[in-house]
Amino acid sequence: MKKAAVIMGSKSDLPVVQPAIDCLRSFGVEVEVRILSAHRTPEAVHEFAQGARDRGVGVIIAAAGKAAHLGGVVAAVTTLPVIGLPVKSSFMDGLDSLLSMVQMPTGIPVACVGVNAGENAGMFAAQMLAIEDESIAAKLLQKKEDMKNAVLKADAEYDA
Amino acid sequence: MKKAAVIMGSKSDLPVVQPAIDCLRSFGVEVEVRILSAHRTPEAVHEFAQGARDRGVGVIIAAAGKAAHLGGVVAAVTTLPVIGLPVKSSFMDGLDSLLSMVQMPTGIPVACVGVNAGENAGMFAAQMLAIEDESIAAKLLQKKEDMKNAVLKADAEYDA
Amino acid sequence: MKKAAVIMGSKSDLPVVQPAIDCLRSFGVEVEVRILSAHRTPEAVHEFAQGARDRGVGVIIAAAGKAAHLGGVVAAVTTLPVIGLPVKSSFMDGLDSLLSMVQMPTGIPVACVGVNAGENAGMFAAQMLAIEDESIAAKLLQKKEDMKNAVLKADAEYDA
Amino acid sequence: MKKAAVIMGSKSDLPVVQPAIDCLRSFGVEVEVRILSAHRTPEAVHEFAQGARDRGVGVIIAAAGKAAHLGGVVAAVTTLPVIGLPVKSSFMDGLDSLLSMVQMPTGIPVACVGVNAGENAGMFAAQMLAIEDESIAAKLLQKKEDMKNAVLKADAEYDA
Amino acid sequence: MKKAAVIMGSKSDLPVVQPAIDCLRSFGVEVEVRILSAHRTPEAVHEFAQGARDRGVGVIIAAAGKAAHLGGVVAAVTTLPVIGLPVKSSFMDGLDSLLSMVQMPTGIPVACVGVNAGENAGMFAAQMLAIEDESIAAKLLQKKEDMKNAVLKADAEYDA
Amino acid sequence: MKKAAVIMGSKSDLPVVQPAIDCLRSFGVEVEVRILSAHRTPEAVHEFAQGARDRGVGVIIAAAGKAAHLGGVVAAVTTLPVIGLPVKSSFMDGLDSLLSMVQMPTGIPVACVGVNAGENAGMFAAQMLAIEDESIAAKLLQKKEDMKNAVLKADAEYDA
Amino acid sequence: MKKAAVIMGSKSDLPVVQPAIDCLRSFGVEVEVRILSAHRTPEAVHEFAQGARDRGVGVIIAAAGKAAHLGGVVAAVTTLPVIGLPVKSSFMDGLDSLLSMVQMPTGIPVACVGVNAGENAGMFAAQMLAIEDESIAAKLLQKKEDMKNAVLKADAEYDA
Amino acid sequence: MKKAAVIMGSKSDLPVVQPAIDCLRSFGVEVEVRILSAHRTPEAVHEFAQGARDRGVGVIIAAAGKAAHLGGVVAAVTTLPVIGLPVKSSFMDGLDSLLSMVQMPTGIPVACVGVNAGENAGMFAAQMLAIEDESIAAKLLQKKEDMKNAVLKADAEYDA
Repeated sequence: MKKAAVIMGSKSDLPVVQPAIDCLRSFGVEVEVRILSAHRTPEAVHEFAQGARDRGVGVIIAAAGKAAHLGGVVAAVTTLPVIGLPVKSSFMDGLDSLLSMVQMPTGIPVACVGVNAGENAGMFAAQMLAIEDESIAAKLLQKKEDMKNAVLKADAEYDA
Repeated sequence: MKKAAVIMGSKSDLPVVQPAIDCLRSFGVEVEVRILSAHRTPEAVHEFAQGARDRGVGVIIAAAGKAAHLGGVVAAVTTLPVIGLPVKSSFMDGLDSLLSMVQMPTGIPVACVGVNAGENAGMFAAQMLAIEDESIAAKLLQKKEDMKNAVLKADAEYDA
Repeated sequence: MKKAAVIMGSKSDLPVVQPAIDCLRSFGVEVEVRILSAHRTPEAVHEFAQGARDRGVGVIIAAAGKAAHLGGVVAAVTTLPVIGLPVKSSFMDGLDSLLSMVQMPTGIPVACVGVNAGENAGMFAAQMLAIEDESIAAKLLQKKEDMKNAVLKADAEYDA
Repeated sequence: MKKAAVIMGSKSDLPVVQPAIDCLRSFGVEVEVRILSAHRTPEAVHEFAQGARDRGVGVIIAAAGKAAHLGGVVAAVTTLPVIGLPVKSSFMDGLDSLLSMVQMPTGIPVACVGVNAGENAGMFAAQMLAIEDESIAAKLLQKKEDMKNAVLKADAEYDA
Repeated sequence: MKKAAVIMGSKSDLPVVQPAIDCLRSFGVEVEVRILSAHRTPEAVHEFAQGARDRGVGVIIAAAGKAAHLGGVVAAVTTLPVIGLPVKSSFMDGLDSLLSMVQMPTGIPVACVGVNAGENAGMFAAQMLAIEDESIAAKLLQKKEDMKNAVLKADAEYDA
Repeated sequence: MKKAAVIMGSKSDLPVVQPAIDCLRSFGVEVEVRILSAHRTPEAVHEFAQGARDRGVGVIIAAAGKAAHLGGVVAAVTTLPVIGLPVKSSFMDGLDSLLSMVQMPTGIPVACVGVNAGENAGMFAAQMLAIEDESIAAKLLQKKEDMKNAVLKADAEYDA
Repeated sequence: MKKAAVIMGSKSDLPVVQPAIDCLRSFGVEVEVRILSAHRTPEAVHEFAQGARDRGVGVIIAAAGKAAHLGGVVAAVTTLPVIGLPVKSSFMDGLDSLLSMVQMPTGIPVACVGVNAGENAGMFAAQMLAIEDESIAAKLLQKKEDMKNAVLKADAEYDA
Repeated sequence: MKKAAVIMGSKSDLPVVQPAIDCLRSFGVEVEVRILSAHRTPEAVHEFAQGARDRGVGVIIAAAGKAAHLGGVVAAVTTLPVIGLPVKSSFMDGLDSLLSMVQMPTGIPVACVGVNAGENAGMFAAQMLAIEDESIAAKLLQKKEDMKNAVLKADAEYDA
C-alpha cells in the first residue's frame, strides 16, 4: 500500500496538521511527516517532492499559511496529487493562504480543503488511497457510519 | 483501471467542465459524464453517488456555481474522493462557489481546484488514478515535460 | 395552526438556534427541533424534509455553518419555505455560510436572515405563520410595540 | 387568498423584479406592484407598508440596490414577512445591496434571496402563500417536477 | 450658532458615539443626543429628522451598525447634511455598516467617516459648523496645532 | 456666500467629478475646479488647500482613485470639511479608493460618499453650504420634491 | 552599473510587464527579460535566480497571476531584492495574485507594487539602482518634474 | 554606506516597526527613525522626505495603518525607493492599510511588504542596500543559511 506524505512549512503549523496525520494513521496509512519550507529550504523541498513517488508515497498533503507556496512548489516537481491545506494566519482568517493555494495555474493543480481543515486533508488523502484499496474503503465507510450515528444520537438526545 | 465521473449542476456549466473531460480522456481515462442538480434532482444525484464505486468509478469531479452544494451532496453518500470545481457565476467571480465547496465540515471533504479551473480538475483526477497506474503516471510526466518545453520555447523566442 | 421546524447541522449550532426556538414558542408556535446534518445524515435530512408538510410543518428554519448546504438540501425536497440561518464559524465571520445559503440557484430559494441572527429567523418564521393567523399577527404587533417602547425609554433616560 | 406585493426602489430595478412578478402570477397569485423609494418617497413607502395587511397582502418583496434600505424601512412598519431582493449595482456585484438587506437588527427581519434572484423571490413568496393554500402548493410541486425533468432531459441528451 | 444632533440606533452604540459628542462639546457646539432606531421607532426618527432644521440643528450624525439604515432614513426627510458613523458589529469589522451607509442612491447622500470613528464624526460636524463660524474654525486650527505638537513631541522623545 | 472647491487627482476623473460640479452650480454655488495630484504635485495641493478658506471656499470635494490620498492630504492642511469622492479604478470596483479615503486616522476626517457618486458629493457640499443659507436650503427642498415626484410618476405610470 | 531582470510566469503576462521593461530602459538600465514559470520550469527559475547576482543583476521584477508563486520562489534562492508585480487574472481583479505575493513569510520578503502596475515596478527597480547611481537619480527627478508639469498643464487648461 | 530611514505615522506603530529597525541594525545598517504623521505633521514629513537623499539615506520604510497615506506622501517628494509597511488596525486585518499603500498611481510607486511584516520590511531594505554592498550581501546570505538550518533542525527533531 502506498503511504501518505505530510509536509508543513513551519513547526508552528503542527496543531493544524496533526489531525491530518492522526486521521491517516487511524485508517492504517503509513505517514511520512516533514517540516520543510518552500522559501527557506527550497532544495530540500525539491528533493522531498522529486523522490516521493519512488519512496512509495501515493499522495502529499502540503500545509502552509500566508503566501502559501508550498503546495505549488511541490506540485511543480511531482506527478503525485498534492492536497493543499491552507493554514489560517493573522490576515482575513486565511483567505491569503486559501487563494495562494487554490488558484494554481493550468496544468499544475493543487486541490484544497478548507482553511485549517486538517482532518479533512487526512480524510481526502485516505479516500485517494482507498480508490484501489478495499480495506481503507471499508474503514472510510465505517467512519461515515460512525459520524452518522453520532448525529442521530445527538438528535435523539436533544430535549428542547 | 478505474474510471472518472464528471457531474455538473447544469448544462450551462459545460464550457467550464469540458476541459476536465478532455484532459482525462487525453490520458486514456474513461469518463462518465452526468448533468444532475443537487437541488433539482436530489434523488438522481444520490443514486449516481451511491452506486459510483460499484460502477468502477475511482474519482468524481463535481462542478457547480453559486451556492454550489453538488460536491458536498455527492461526498455525503460516497467514500470516493470528490473534487470540487467551482464555476464562476455573476457574483464576485465565483467566490460564492468556491466557499460553498471548499469550506466543507469535518469528515466530509471536498477538495477544490480554482474557480473555472476545469483542466486542473481533470489533471488532479488523473493524478489520483495514476497513484497506482504507471501508464497514466508516465503520461502525466510527459505532459509536465511538454508544458516545460512550451515555456522554454517562449522564453527562447522572446526578443524584447 | 401549522408548526415550525428548526433543523441544525450540529449540536454546536444550538446557541445560535435557541433564540429562534424561544422566539417561536413565545408566539405560541409549536416547534419541531432536529439535529441533522446534510453531509453526515443525508437520508435522515431527506426523510425529515420529505414528510414535513404532512407532519403539519408550515415553515422550516435551517441553521448551518461553513459550506452550509443544509438549507439547500432541505429546500430541494420540499415546497415549504426554508429560512436559512447562517452560523458564524471561524472564517470571515460566516461569509462562507451566508454565501453558501443565500446564493441558491433559480427555482429552489432559501431566504436568509443575517449571520447568527437566530431570533430574526424565529421572527420571520412567525411572520409567515401569521399571514393567515390573526393571533400570531397580534402578538407580532405587540412585540413591535414593546421594542419601540424599549427604545423610547432608553432615549428618554439618556442623560448625556 | 392573500396577494403578494412587490415594491422596488427604482424603475431601473424592473428587469430584476419582473421574474418575481411573473413567477407569482404563474402560480395564480395576485400581485400588487409599486415603484417607491425609501429615500425619495419615505411617506409613500410608509403608507404602502402600513396598509398592506389590510389590503389583503400576505407577503412583500422589496427590491433595491446599493445601500438598500427599502426592505428594512418596510419591515419597520408592518408585521408581514418582507423578502429582500438585493439588486446588483456597480459595486462588488451587489455585495453592498446584500449586506444592507440581510444584516437587519434583531427583531426586524428581512430574509434575502440571492443577488438579482428575482424568480427566487417570487418562488419564496409563493411558498409562503402555499403554507395554507393547497392549490399553490400543488403548483409548486409541479414546478419542482418540471425542473427535475428538464435536468434529466439535459442529462439524457448529453452526448460527450 | 447652529447645534449638532447625534442620533444612534441603540444604546449599545454609545461607546462609539460618545467621542463624537465630546469632540463637539469641546468646540463649544451644543449637541442634541437621541437614541432612536430606524426600524423600531420609525415614526420618532421621522419626527426627529423632520423638525431638526427648525430646532436649530445644522448637522446630524447618525450612528448605526449592521444593515445601518439610520443615516439614510434621516437623510430622506431633511435637507441637513447627515454624517454616517458606521458602528462595527460582529460581521467583517463593520463592512456591512459601512456599505449600508456610504453607498446611498443618487440625490440622498450620507457622507461617512470610518468604522467606529466617533471622534472624526464629531470633528467633521464641527468643521461644517465652522464654515461660517470663525470661533470654531479657530479652535479647529488649535486642535490641528495640538495634534501636530503631540506627534513632534513623540518624535523628539523617541530614542531607538 | 462661500464657494465650493472641487479637486481631482487626474483629468481622467472628470466624468465622475462633473456631476458634482453641475449639481453645485445648479444650486447657484460658485465652484472652483482644480486638477492636482497628491503624488505628482504635492506642493500645489498644499498651496491649494492652505489658502482655500481665505479664497472664500467653504467646502472641498476631493476625488481620486486607487490609493486615493488626495482627500487626506488636503484635510491635513485645512480645517475646512473635505468630502471624499472615491473613483472606481480597475480593482474591486473602487474598494481600494473607498478604504483609502474613508478610514482616515483620528482627528483628520474625510467623509466619503459612495464610489463614483459624483452627484452625491455635490449634493452633500450644497447641504453644508445650506446650513446657514436659506436660499440653497430652499433649492435642496425643491430638489427633494422633484425626486419624489419623479418616483411617484414612475409608480403611477407603471402598468404591470 | 547593475542591470535589472524581469521575469514573468507566462508570455501572456507581457502586456502588463512591458511597461516595466520600457520604463527601465528609458532610464538607461539594461534589462534581462525571461519567461519562466515557477510551476512549469522550476529548475530554470532556480538557475535563473541562483546566478542572477553573478550575472550583474541588481534587482529582479517577478510578474505572475493567480496563485502567483514566482516572486517567492525567486526570493527563496537569491539575496537580491525581488519586486512582485501581481497580474490581474479572472478572479477578483487580481486579489489572489496580490495576496499570493505580498503576504510572504518572515525572512523572505517580496515587495509588491499594485495589481498590473507594470510601470511602477519598473520605476521602483530604477529607484533601487539609483540609490548609488546619481545619473539614474537625476533622470528620476526629471521624470517627477515631467509628471508634475503634465498635471499642472491639465490643471491650467481645464475650463469648466 | 547609505543608511536606512524608518518613519511611522504614530508611536503606536512601534511594535510593528521595531523588527524592521532591529533587522537593519543586525546587518550593520545605520537607521534613522522618525515618528511623523502624513496628516498631523505634513510639513515635517515633507521636510523629512525632501532632505533624505542629502542626509545619506538610501531607502525609506514607511509604516502606517488605516488610510495609510504616509508612504505615498513620502514617495511624492523623493526619488528614493519607499517600502510600505501596512500596519493592521481594527478593520479587516489591515486590508485598508494594504490597499492604501500598494495601489499607488502610475509613476509614484510604493512597494509593500505584508501586513505587519516589520522584519520583512527591514530585510527588503537591507537587500536594496546590499545591491552594491558585498558585506551586507554576505550577511543576508548567512541569514538565509541560518533560516534554512533552523527549518532543517525542526524537521530532523520532529518525531511524530
